[in-house]
Amino acid sequence: MKTARIVLEYLKVNNIKHIFGIPAGSVNGIFNELYDMPEITPIVAKHEGAASYMAAAYAKYTNQLSVCIGCSGPGSTNLVTGAANAMREHLPVLFITGAVPVNTVGLNASQELDVEPVFKPVTKYSVTVNDAQDILTEIVKATEIAISGVPGPVHIAIPIDVQHENVENVEIPTPATRKAIVPELEIIKDVANELLKREKGYIFVGQGVRNSVESLIELAELLNWPIVTSPQAKGYIPEDHPLLVGIYGFAGHEAASSLLNDGDGEALLIVGSSLGETATNNYNANLVGSRFSVQMDFDQSVFNRKYKIDQPVLGDINLSLAFLIEELRALGVTKESSQYIIEVIEAEEEVAEEYNTKNVLLNLQKYVPASTRYTIDIGEFMSYVIHHMKVLESNTYDINVHFGAMGTGIGTAIGSQLANPEHPVVCITGDGCFFMHGMEIATAKEYNLPILFVVMNNARLGMVYHGHALQFKRTHSSFEQEPINISAMAAAMNIPSFRVNQLEDINQEVIDSLMNLNGPAVLEVALVDNNTPPMGDRVKFLSSFGK
Amino acid sequence: MKTARIVLEYLKVNNIKHIFGIPAGSVNGIFNELYDMPEITPIVAKHEGAASYMAAAYAKYTNQLSVCIGCSGPGSTNLVTGAANAMREHLPVLFITGAVPVNTVGLNASQELDVEPVFKPVTKYSVTVNDAQDILTEIVKATEIAISGVPGPVHIAIPIDVQHENVENVEIPTPATRKAIVPELEIIKDVANELLKREKGYIFVGQGVRNSVESLIELAELLNWPIVTSPQAKGYIPEDHPLLVGIYGFAGHEAASSLLNDGDGEALLIVGSSLGETATNNYNANLVGSRFSVQMDFDQSVFNRKYKIDQPVLGDINLSLAFLIEELRALGVTKESSQYIIEVIEAEEEVAEEYNTKNVLLNLQKYVPASTRYTIDIGEFMSYVIHHMKVLESNTYDINVHFGAMGTGIGTAIGSQLANPEHPVVCITGDGCFFMHGMEIATAKEYNLPILFVVMNNARLGMVYHGHALQFKRTHSSFEQEPINISAMAAAMNIPSFRVNQLEDINQEVIDSLMNLNGPAVLEVALVDNNTPPMGDRVKFLSSFGK
Repeated sequence: MKTARIVLEYLKVNNIKHIFGIPAGSVNGIFNELYDMPEITPIVAKHEGAASYMAAAYAKYTNQLSVCIGCSGPGSTNLVTGAANAMREHLPVLFITGAVPVNTVGLNASQELDVEPVFKPVTKYSVTVNDAQDILTEIVKATEIAISGVPGPVHIAIPIDVQHENVENVEIPTPATRKAIVPELEIIKDVANELLKREKGYIFVGQGVRNSVESLIELAELLNWPIVTSPQAKGYIPEDHPLLVGIYGFAGHEAASSLLNDGDGEALLIVGSSLGETATNNYNANLVGSRFSVQMDFDQSVFNRKYKIDQPVLGDINLSLAFLIEELRALGVTKESSQYIIEVIEAEEEVAEEYNTKNVLLNLQKYVPASTRYTIDIGEFMSYVIHHMKVLESNTYDINVHFGAMGTGIGTAIGSQLANPEHPVVCITGDGCFFMHGMEIATAKEYNLPILFVVMNNARLGMVYHGHALQFKRTHSSFEQEPINISAMAAAMNIPSFRVNQLEDINQEVIDSLMNLNGPAVLEVALVDNNTPPMGDRVKFLSSFGK
Repeated sequence: MKTARIVLEYLKVNNIKHIFGIPAGSVNGIFNELYDMPEITPIVAKHEGAASYMAAAYAKYTNQLSVCIGCSGPGSTNLVTGAANAMREHLPVLFITGAVPVNTVGLNASQELDVEPVFKPVTKYSVTVNDAQDILTEIVKATEIAISGVPGPVHIAIPIDVQHENVENVEIPTPATRKAIVPELEIIKDVANELLKREKGYIFVGQGVRNSVESLIELAELLNWPIVTSPQAKGYIPEDHPLLVGIYGFAGHEAASSLLNDGDGEALLIVGSSLGETATNNYNANLVGSRFSVQMDFDQSVFNRKYKIDQPVLGDINLSLAFLIEELRALGVTKESSQYIIEVIEAEEEVAEEYNTKNVLLNLQKYVPASTRYTIDIGEFMSYVIHHMKVLESNTYDINVHFGAMGTGIGTAIGSQLANPEHPVVCITGDGCFFMHGMEIATAKEYNLPILFVVMNNARLGMVYHGHALQFKRTHSSFEQEPINISAMAAAMNIPSFRVNQLEDINQEVIDSLMNLNGPAVLEVALVDNNTPPMGDRVKFLSSFGK
């Protein structure tokens, strides 16, 4: 069997249905085999960077390995941002890259580059397979590494001559499975006892809760403790849950800040958060304070980093939560009625008449289906989304404030749509992101993906603009651009579009006309919002230097 | 003086007038200082990758250091392709990236990534400056490394807190200068004697000749030996020079192939070529054969790699050529009339009536000024440009078939225009490249750069399509896309445009209307060319595997 075929057959048994990337000569071995494997569809993107974001989202929402491909040289290096992004987001993406023939290494072949060392710092494993006999071992190894422990990206470079080589007597093994990280029961027992010693405590939730939301809610209800989430975890706990206080950290809520900064809760149970900058209001010491702290995570490295943690619990979040619930029940704990009903946020969320980012987002949400997943790009609008938008169903927000790559929201929309077609997808992006990766709306069109791309067009890098203005009381003219009519661009691309110029332009009719399609649409929101975005402490953080 | 200011003041004395990149919080120290330094203009691109191509071209055409900037995390990794490209092209680009505050390293700050090791394999030097006291030393060191020896890119990461720190008693040193690599006179003497022993020989020219074209021509005329160039060196030797035979290698000319493969020349003088895949028809042994071979280069590593070289000459090309000319003159050599007049190519170049890529390019060239610099992107059209277009003035073609990054032609157009505004610029790109980095036409508009972007729109990845068809006798549907009207897109962006549907659409009036502007324009060529492009041996090369 040809090496390229071996790779694809193994991916097939691992349930891979899409491969994201761009074809080229140095990966033609792979693409040629794809003819004969209709089970796998290549999703050809406009830029490998965008393909890598699609693959990351696809891994996230299928809860399995995903695959991204690029040619040797530039096609590979264009994937590096995506690898770093997947690393940060703990997403198991297999990056396959082409490479020059083994015997031409060092001879300046077209697009020659040894990318193995480039990928090394941004993946869990990076290897070049120079011998066809090694391909099966390496693809299995890479896949297992990707999905094991703390999941993350891996990289395999396959020289073009190796792709075409035949290997005899190949037997494709069974799919790779993740070995669960099982928390120690003794530690869980300790945690249960310690938590019960404290009458009042708080639960701090990061995006590690993604596949364990029901357990988390059950636990919160058992303890009757309020829940605060990180910005990245927006969208997991339904807005109307009485124990949900709000978001702490970047663009977060006053209620959450007050609770954690000043509240007298004696314990803090941290679930699936690495306690990074955006989650902690810049490492605010009050978050943990003198509370008894428990941190559940599958990543050993997040314990006792900035905060001293009394009881780290290493394990998969779903298991740690299940064990803890069981233990609490064994200790006789049952649900009581909640005492934490948060009304503060509700009160300030009413849609007012001003044509501003906040009201646009709230208005938009009135007309799109409740099951819509919002994939949020990087920009000024992001802080409004985090702060103001409602969570109607769990797992309906995708916000990447960690790695913060412009254009991720666009790629994520496509990956999400392919992974979970039952969720309508609305991408909220900005003109800056659109000019970086917006041509992927054509990719969405080619594959008939019904995605609504909402482009907040303020003709400037709004986050940079506002951040700089807040910090330095001036902005540089290069932060602003000549306004470009993005809906007209979309129309020129034969993609349905609408340009919003006032709040009333967003209504049921307009939204329906853009969402009930067999392909993408663009809703451009032409709006320069001079209000200061609710980005709060990000600026304080940056301003703390050089004063 | 603030660290950020020190960096900029040093760049200023090094004659830096533009900085390419995208602003963000983690580089706001640099951008804030730019207010007070009107001598340096930031060119804010739509994608850092495109900015890096602009910077590379700017270094190439200003013959000095250029600077590219991106934020920590994604802004940095988006520059990696550009660094690898500059490395391959030997261009001194300083990449400056932001980084998270020194004391937050490892704590998951927003956009945190240690990119120093990512840049290491694709630069000559990569460092993170964690102490403001080191900044001057490091910026001087990086600059010197970039422009010395074999020039190339360097990378400095400056954490945001360090950017704002003050350093006392700073004295900005004088600009960095390149120490010439002086060839050994004894070797030059030997070369002169050996060459004169052979009556007939050939000169093989790579892009290393860029700044020494006059000397090269003088030498060729002294020896009365024909000149063959690599594809990458297209554009340096004017087409009408009687000694120019044509291009060898990728998309090259039969006349050049015949001469080198079958000619009885006894010597081969290689000037400024690394003898890579595209230059050598896939390392064709006949190129050197049993000839006495001399290779002049400033890069020690290119000698005796695939070809045994009898006399390597290490030194800057301009010096090696000057010394050799002087030595030949001292030995009594004078110019004689040329015997090598190449008519083969001329004959086949007449513009025919068929609406195809070749005729479009030749027609285009009839109407644009002779001094126009063509920046050629990566795609099917590239092989037609190399094979068919005429060189009217030296240094008017920019073709990057080495690293071959899609979109380089677009960034190069902008870098070239800013570096040499006296050359009109025509970028020849394709729809694939346009969808990757075409939004930079908006950047060209913002900075009023008169560039004509010719987009060869065949609604497919033509190079992939034809290459695959030739090799496998079938193509994958994913290589083709739904046609998109790119001139309509440009019009929507308020950029003048015209859509070509037949050969006659390209005429003086149309070209004048698009080129005599205070900004960019788009000439879309809607054309599916089913002729096999003159890419020749690239396919043979790829086909040689897996058969």
